[in-house]
Amino acid sequence: MADQPIYQASTTAPVNIAVVKYWGKRDPKLNLPTNSSISVTLSQADLRTHTTAACSASFGPGDSLLLNTSPQDVSGARTQACFRELRSLRSELEASSPSLPKLAALPLRIVSENNFPTAAGLASSAAGFAALVRAIANLYELKSTPTELSRIARQGSGSACRSLFGGYVAWQMGEKDDGSDSLAVEIAPASHWPTMRALILVVSAEKKDVSSTAGMQITVATSKYFKTRAQEVVPEAMILMEKAIKEKNFQSFGEVTMAESNSFHASCLDTRPPIFYLNDVSRAAITAVNSINKKAGRIIAAYTFDAGPNAVIYYEDENTDAVAGVLKGALGNLDGWEDKDVKVQDYSYVDTRAISVLKGGLSRVILTSVGEGPIRTEESLIAANGEPVRK
Amino acid sequence: MADQPIYQASTTAPVNIAVVKYWGKRDPKLNLPTNSSISVTLSQADLRTHTTAACSASFGPGDSLLLNTSPQDVSGARTQACFRELRSLRSELEASSPSLPKLAALPLRIVSENNFPTAAGLASSAAGFAALVRAIANLYELKSTPTELSRIARQGSGSACRSLFGGYVAWQMGEKDDGSDSLAVEIAPASHWPTMRALILVVSAEKKDVSSTAGMQITVATSKYFKTRAQEVVPEAMILMEKAIKEKNFQSFGEVTMAESNSFHASCLDTRPPIFYLNDVSRAAITAVNSINKKAGRIIAAYTFDAGPNAVIYYEDENTDAVAGVLKGALGNLDGWEDKDVKVQDYSYVDTRAISVLKGGLSRVILTSVGEGPIRTEESLIAANGEPVRK
Repeated sequence: MADQPIYQASTTAPVNIAVVKYWGKRDPKLNLPTNSSISVTLSQADLRTHTTAACSASFGPGDSLLLNTSPQDVSGARTQACFRELRSLRSELEASSPSLPKLAALPLRIVSENNFPTAAGLASSAAGFAALVRAIANLYELKSTPTELSRIARQGSGSACRSLFGGYVAWQMGEKDDGSDSLAVEIAPASHWPTMRALILVVSAEKKDVSSTAGMQITVATSKYFKTRAQEVVPEAMILMEKAIKEKNFQSFGEVTMAESNSFHASCLDTRPPIFYLNDVSRAAITAVNSINKKAGRIIAAYTFDAGPNAVIYYEDENTDAVAGVLKGALGNLDGWEDKDVKVQDYSYVDTRAISVLKGGLSRVILTSVGEGPIRTEESLIAANGEPVRK
Repeated sequence: MADQPIYQASTTAPVNIAVVKYWGKRDPKLNLPTNSSISVTLSQADLRTHTTAACSASFGPGDSLLLNTSPQDVSGARTQACFRELRSLRSELEASSPSLPKLAALPLRIVSENNFPTAAGLASSAAGFAALVRAIANLYELKSTPTELSRIARQGSGSACRSLFGGYVAWQMGEKDDGSDSLAVEIAPASHWPTMRALILVVSAEKKDVSSTAGMQITVATSKYFKTRAQEVVPEAMILMEKAIKEKNFQSFGEVTMAESNSFHASCLDTRPPIFYLNDVSRAAITAVNSINKKAGRIIAAYTFDAGPNAVIYYEDENTDAVAGVLKGALGNLDGWEDKDVKVQDYSYVDTRAISVLKGGLSRVILTSVGEGPIRTEESLIAANGEPVRK
């Protein structure tokens, strides 16, 4: 068995943070959403999953996945769907080019590492499934476009489909029952609006009460507001947000981003029993952003919250001082400011109580920016002998 | 002037806590609401405003109002509307019975005292305006029914119209532009369902960010969910709640009460900028109520929150141990349990973190029950010489 060749390929994939939110599935098995969504892909310099996919007759029995050195269960329907779809594409390729090695039949070994804490509420499953799908597609030498692969990644984790692109990405909900038109597309590359920055306020030691998947289906089943959101609020937000991105209009981008976050969390609160992801620390972050915008006389900072209490604050590079600098003034003692060029600014105009709650409730900050989609890399997490590289 | 007669009459009036929420005015000047609402009147043994209304040619110049020994501004449009409407009814009476003393023309002196802290988020304005209107109506010997007086009290403070009745009260939004059909009516007296209890968890030192009046009109103007709430959610809740009260069906009463509270606060969160009244302490109270209901296997406790973080928890007398007793087990060190027959119960099944947040965030509890409407009293807050009684 030691003579069996080992095939492998590696990629990194980014985190994305939605500005028009995905919440609610019309088909939980296929991860088909009840509404379209839009996200900004964040720089992999700060947040990324690095994944190597390998296959060999010497592996097995069965497929395996190692995440941050811990073996993961790959028998779940979501991971299996990704493996199955990718193998099917490889089989088609092998059938049409008989000289190709028969990789589809070989056991897969996937090794993955995040450069940030998993399950810290930082959309790690999106980067994880995007990297898994992209790495296997590289291994299988598939010609599929990112949009074609997004159909597969979506079945692993809905929002993962958006992490196959850099920049500004829409996930079109689609209409078909088989999900073949529920796909991610690029609205604009990172280079179109490269000055977009994101400051993440990471809340300490707050565990989620409800997992996202359970939560969203309870909302669909019980919230009377949810229907209004899916049918009226989001379709309007999609149009406004796409326009804002194309025109690089931060005022409009910020308005829609904050309203969308509020609308999503209002749907959660309207669920029976209610789901709360925002806590007093989140509320203090909102107060601080409102203060910053009031001082500026326009929207220069926009908060958004996923299914957790962490605030992601978008702003443009030219307002780094007025947004990140003010928060560094108040929160400069936290980890995450080092090696980033942010000048401490006066924060005395920000609500004192909000600052106090933020000081007591945050564990760190992450400063990042809009970034690229998955990047193929020769850096492998699997050694020539097929074993995971120990870092 | 000392020989001028002093006319006076006194009343007490109750607090009410809505179970179908009032939020949004279609006419801010007349306090005409965008939806109907339902409340439970709470016992005056625990929460009441005591008001004496007097008039005399020796008073003045002008009308005056003393609340808890502090002089209040009576020039505001709301107070003026109440005075004007009541004087107008008295004038009609004097015109039809010329032997009556001409009280409508005399300066009014109102003295009011609450048996609970004003502005602690305990609906003091509802009790206050109900007592003011009832006391002056007594002084003027008006034959008006409580429903007729509710039209006047509503102009002082919207929810005050519901405090003119005991028991279970509906405020019918009405349709007319002049507000003549926007009135309170009794759904059922306290004696119909006398076993209803209320436990109020008073949150310490949390100041409101936004006053109710400003908040609700921003919601009307900016929340996309608000329309759904006013047009669909509340009309359905009104029907279900009236039925639940008439049938004394606590399961249904509790379901609607909690969903209504969530729906109202979801509308607030959907406002631009978002309005938060619930904080981490409120959220912990919700978690505790959910634990209690889960343990019971049905709804035996129902939370509701007005425009502030205090929880009001309704339950039936037969479940005092299972609801109030459990919370007393966890929070027995707080003020408010004394002189109330509540046995301490095991609370170990309630989420530990929720208990810890409640312990750290509450200032006191108030144990009360459904109660009667305004009660005429001979106990006067104004002495024979016309001066306020110093207690």
